[in-house]
Amino acid sequence: MYRKIIDNVNQNKPLVHCITNNVTINDCANAVLACGGSPIMADDIREVEEIISICSALYLNIGTLNERTVYSMIRAGEKANELGKPIIFDPVGAGASKLRTSVALDIIRQLKCAVIRGNMSEIKTLYSGAGMTKGVDAAPGDVLLDSNRDEVIKMAQELSRTTGAVIAITGETDLVADTKQAYLIRNGHPLMEKITGTGCMLTAVIAAFCGVNQDQMVDATATAICMMGLSGELAYKKMIDEGSGTGSLRCYIIDGLSNITADTLEIDAKLEKA
Amino acid sequence: MYRKIIDNVNQNKPLVHCITNNVTINDCANAVLACGGSPIMADDIREVEEIISICSALYLNIGTLNERTVYSMIRAGEKANELGKPIIFDPVGAGASKLRTSVALDIIRQLKCAVIRGNMSEIKTLYSGAGMTKGVDAAPGDVLLDSNRDEVIKMAQELSRTTGAVIAITGETDLVADTKQAYLIRNGHPLMEKITGTGCMLTAVIAAFCGVNQDQMVDATATAICMMGLSGELAYKKMIDEGSGTGSLRCYIIDGLSNITADTLEIDAKLEKA
Amino acid sequence: MYRKIIDNVNQNKPLVHCITNNVTINDCANAVLACGGSPIMADDIREVEEIISICSALYLNIGTLNERTVYSMIRAGEKANELGKPIIFDPVGAGASKLRTSVALDIIRQLKCAVIRGNMSEIKTLYSGAGMTKGVDAAPGDVLLDSNRDEVIKMAQELSRTTGAVIAITGETDLVADTKQAYLIRNGHPLMEKITGTGCMLTAVIAAFCGVNQDQMVDATATAICMMGLSGELAYKKMIDEGSGTGSLRCYIIDGLSNITADTLEIDAKLEKA
Repeated sequence: MYRKIIDNVNQNKPLVHCITNNVTINDCANAVLACGGSPIMADDIREVEEIISICSALYLNIGTLNERTVYSMIRAGEKANELGKPIIFDPVGAGASKLRTSVALDIIRQLKCAVIRGNMSEIKTLYSGAGMTKGVDAAPGDVLLDSNRDEVIKMAQELSRTTGAVIAITGETDLVADTKQAYLIRNGHPLMEKITGTGCMLTAVIAAFCGVNQDQMVDATATAICMMGLSGELAYKKMIDEGSGTGSLRCYIIDGLSNITADTLEIDAKLEKA
Repeated sequence: MYRKIIDNVNQNKPLVHCITNNVTINDCANAVLACGGSPIMADDIREVEEIISICSALYLNIGTLNERTVYSMIRAGEKANELGKPIIFDPVGAGASKLRTSVALDIIRQLKCAVIRGNMSEIKTLYSGAGMTKGVDAAPGDVLLDSNRDEVIKMAQELSRTTGAVIAITGETDLVADTKQAYLIRNGHPLMEKITGTGCMLTAVIAAFCGVNQDQMVDATATAICMMGLSGELAYKKMIDEGSGTGSLRCYIIDGLSNITADTLEIDAKLEKA
Repeated sequence: MYRKIIDNVNQNKPLVHCITNNVTINDCANAVLACGGSPIMADDIREVEEIISICSALYLNIGTLNERTVYSMIRAGEKANELGKPIIFDPVGAGASKLRTSVALDIIRQLKCAVIRGNMSEIKTLYSGAGMTKGVDAAPGDVLLDSNRDEVIKMAQELSRTTGAVIAITGETDLVADTKQAYLIRNGHPLMEKITGTGCMLTAVIAAFCGVNQDQMVDATATAICMMGLSGELAYKKMIDEGSGTGSLRCYIIDGLSNITADTLEIDAKLEKA
């Protein structure tokens, strides 16, 4: 499945409209470029409708939300829905404050999202309507294990049913699910948590992939997750080989996104149907 | 010509007041430092007049414009004009939305810019007062070729006449022109497009160079473009040698800016009078 | 002293609430992660009280202050004071504009800061209530020398007495002082000034260290300064060995933060009681 999805990206160079946080905005832009897309960051309410009109997908991320940009997200999202362009949503820190939780819930209620990607704490918050997230990382107990696997898949599929979105929960093991199918993915490396933005970049890559693969968004999402995880593995290996550290790791991860091909994915992706 | 311009930068360490987008703001700051200047980012309207007063140049970039920062740009620009400090303007995405086009036109009408640098689509938009830019990249047909060269130079020189600014159009081949002279530059590498911010960084470097070379701004702009292009060439070579990717390429480009001397430029700059 | 402080960081993974500038926000987040903490950037006034409540320390930085974020800083700071969480303040550019000076003075008057870190010009501005800073760098004459050492220590200790904060003045030689004690630190390399954000990152690392070392904040601050300086030394060495430049230097500095242990500090930190 990887080849068709990646070919579509390379042939169409999807333009991704990003309204995102200012911590990892540069990484998101470079990640979209590295994987074959083209980013445009635009969050003034007076231009977001026009910008989404020339783009293939809308990427929303509430990592440093504020009143001004939340209005822009909703306005851009309504236009995206009207035009049938997929919205890819990253509910950063949902559960960490009432504001984030309520904005995240507003977004999934007022907009039809195509994909929602978060860590377990964030997705649980969306599912239950409240949460106890530890900052922007998953709370310690919020982990996908063999023992809670069926329960987590059930949650994801129920959230998929109520929102209409593909649900991606990322962590040591990743899950991608819609109402009918689910994948588990075991790529990646724990040290990816030691740099900011791996989640944000991943969601941006998902947006690029889904923008030109709207008929297969579960597969497109899974492919993006495999690619990001594999980039992390290669980057970790290089970091150890060179005796560098997490500053270099960040560059190596984007290097990976720019180098990994469908061939590599066919060999090294660790994806299984759940 | 390179030596005199670069010596002026190294001796005077120009302070550059930047009001720029939040995607590449860190890269712009590091690019200014790498080439021998010193950046200060300040966009609150209550301080911009004071900040430009202690600086050598004002760098304006509308990459993520919003209502608050547009007012600050105009206010800072009026003060810069009053004090005779050069304004270097990067009309990112002019043509991609009505907002960007109209703000860009407001800036060149209300302020006297010293240099305007953009891709072909952006400059065409300023020239014609309207545009059809594909996001923040040049539209596919907007390329400087041997076949349209005279026409493009004529456009640049007419825009120079109406705005009073040096016009720089960058792409595979770059053009720098005022009403009297024009240079073509053929440094750079296509892969520079795969990282965000090469255009923004270049304009920031132009601002540093022009801040202390006000009597020779065409040459200062051309020198900055040669240096940036050469950084891209060296960075690409290193990326291939090391088998890295676009995440590392971004660092190598700034490495280049910090290492390239007048000697290197005298050997490797590909500049010709048009 | 280093071991106990670093062990506390590694064992408790302090969550640091950052309200900071958008130039170096990504570097600050990665620096906090690299040194063993966890950052959360949140500046909307509707959520800052809740966010600081789940964190160990509050990091305030006025590098790109604006009206919206200044209110958020004050609100977050009042809550931090109420809850007894340390506020670590970086008065970037105090003295460079009336706005920055007055906001910086407001912050140290309205909030009880635990640590204030700046360059000599910024600290002098806070001390005297006015300043003549050259942009965001120290003015040329503002240097800690053997000849003015006693005078500088006296100023720092008096500012410590009036504010209740540990005062850190960084430059070629660094000073950390409260009313009772003072350290001089001689780690670091001059080329660190050629990348943006070394000061911001350092203050963020101090925040992480102080968040879980509230009974020894002078020592925690000194340890963070030694670690940052040592990262700069190692990064410089690597840059020279590899013939790279300042773009790579930035990554290597964060590499250092992720690699330096208490063992390394015990051997290479250049700290003395003043």
